[in-house]
Amino acid sequence: MAKKLIGVDLGGTTIKFAILTENGEIQQKWSLRTNILDEGSHIVPDIVDSINHHLDLYKMSRDQFVGIGMGTPGTIDRDKGTVIGAYNLNWKTTQHVKDDIEKGTGMKFAVDNDANVAALGELWKGAGNEGDDVAFITLGTGVGGGLISNGKLIHGLGAGGEVGHMIVKPNGYLCTCGNHGCLEQYASATGIVHIAQDKAEEYEGDSRLKAMIDNGDEITAKIVFDLAKENDYLANVVVDEVCMYLGLACANLSDALNPEYLVIGGGVSAAGDFLLKRVNANFKKFAFPTVKTSTQLKLAELGNDAGVIGAASLARQFMD
Amino acid sequence: MAKKLIGVDLGGTTIKFAILTENGEIQQKWSLRTNILDEGSHIVPDIVDSINHHLDLYKMSRDQFVGIGMGTPGTIDRDKGTVIGAYNLNWKTTQHVKDDIEKGTGMKFAVDNDANVAALGELWKGAGNEGDDVAFITLGTGVGGGLISNGKLIHGLGAGGEVGHMIVKPNGYLCTCGNHGCLEQYASATGIVHIAQDKAEEYEGDSRLKAMIDNGDEITAKIVFDLAKENDYLANVVVDEVCMYLGLACANLSDALNPEYLVIGGGVSAAGDFLLKRVNANFKKFAFPTVKTSTQLKLAELGNDAGVIGAASLARQFMD
Repeated sequence: MAKKLIGVDLGGTTIKFAILTENGEIQQKWSLRTNILDEGSHIVPDIVDSINHHLDLYKMSRDQFVGIGMGTPGTIDRDKGTVIGAYNLNWKTTQHVKDDIEKGTGMKFAVDNDANVAALGELWKGAGNEGDDVAFITLGTGVGGGLISNGKLIHGLGAGGEVGHMIVKPNGYLCTCGNHGCLEQYASATGIVHIAQDKAEEYEGDSRLKAMIDNGDEITAKIVFDLAKENDYLANVVVDEVCMYLGLACANLSDALNPEYLVIGGGVSAAGDFLLKRVNANFKKFAFPTVKTSTQLKLAELGNDAGVIGAASLARQFMD
Repeated sequence: MAKKLIGVDLGGTTIKFAILTENGEIQQKWSLRTNILDEGSHIVPDIVDSINHHLDLYKMSRDQFVGIGMGTPGTIDRDKGTVIGAYNLNWKTTQHVKDDIEKGTGMKFAVDNDANVAALGELWKGAGNEGDDVAFITLGTGVGGGLISNGKLIHGLGAGGEVGHMIVKPNGYLCTCGNHGCLEQYASATGIVHIAQDKAEEYEGDSRLKAMIDNGDEITAKIVFDLAKENDYLANVVVDEVCMYLGLACANLSDALNPEYLVIGGGVSAAGDFLLKRVNANFKKFAFPTVKTSTQLKLAELGNDAGVIGAASLARQFMD
């Protein structure tokens, strides 16, 4: 009988769970608030309890499952199944998530980086179209990446896919990583607000965005894009700059990988075709001729489900 | 009995051949001038004749060989074994190299891009140390790349590894590809001379390099590096700029792939540790923290043999 997969998407505010068929159809979904108190020591026990509780609730037994996959922030040792340096989980020391979750649930467990897992989700059931060569860029609070070549994630020595830290402007904005001019500082939600604030200072003309900023109103990336769509001049200056750097990074990445698709996801990608078109115009300007005519930019399709679906796909390695 | 491999490195001026053991030891080497007359129509027959002639000479039979591998410029269809757009070979129309060489020699044949093949050579027997994740940048007349992830070349849709056309300076020097600011325009032998000429125009102080340029002497990348080693001020300004852009590209590439090694080869890399140290300083400045402490930059080790060795390695796919 066909077995099922469990996907866990561990984030700083919520933990999302899903039970999926082997074909990646979501059958059950639930979620939990992430309790990061006490150095995040409740997180793994909460995951174990929640899975066990839901299996009881649905009257399902362990042998109906292939295993559990999980996406998490932090630096991951995939073989050992450990995580370290996940600061928004308060995990400062090494966490033996694989050992603890396998012991607690009686199921096999695999773990990878959250951006990689979202990429696997889009690859399997979303915009990636099950391609062998697909690149994903996630524009959220930060900028993450998941790169697939010859059907496999590019991990390299572990940090492969750190596209948010490709330098798009040498000596540009200071990044949380300590370097200057990382893509993340220009294309993340926070980066877009930063650009807006800087441009508002220089700009003298009419603009609702400028008025809001001068008024001390809270600005978000969504507000910038919404105003740009309404032809606000300053908002369009900001969006142009964001899309220039994004197009540059997409081009440089695609010159290296020449993927079938370069998929743009994450909260900022909610700006939709408005964003995609402008990024694409810059991509066409910067990419190598053979690359710009072959690699196709597109928007992610799965939204918030990419994480649990991709996480579940990690467990497919345990299928007979 | 262990069989042998044939490697062919097809270039615009010479065709290099080698017979290798299955372990990649070169046993015989020879070469031929490339005859690009008549739209390059003599090239494939010359390769066939030369291989057949040498097998007769060495009294070897076809069944002693696994097959033939070849590296070539141009756009390659690896499955069909065709090449198109290899302008320095005068190949403007599709060349059915696989069909013709298999028919002419009676041996199996595989083909890939010259930069990829050189990367495979270094991976197998040189600086790549048979790693699963290694990136190669070749600094010659142009700048080429060969990227290996999870033990496989990254081809993507065919143009993967075009690192010479990653943009390091938006709106910079015009490149032969039609874009502006490609790495190739700053780190190839011709790019280095271009930078030297530009910097010489601005510079007013003492410099042997400036004197040579003002005098109309022919400048090469080697002269620039040699003068820089002798503390010529202007030459060092040029080398600093070259190494800044190279370090930036190495960092951006490594943030994506996080390879064990990033290997720098090609004629320009003859500048040795003098080059490597300065590129490395910039790499450390630009790369993501986890990447700069894990990915290691090194110089290529095989020199001109990288091509035939890597080409021969393509034929290993035919081993039983």
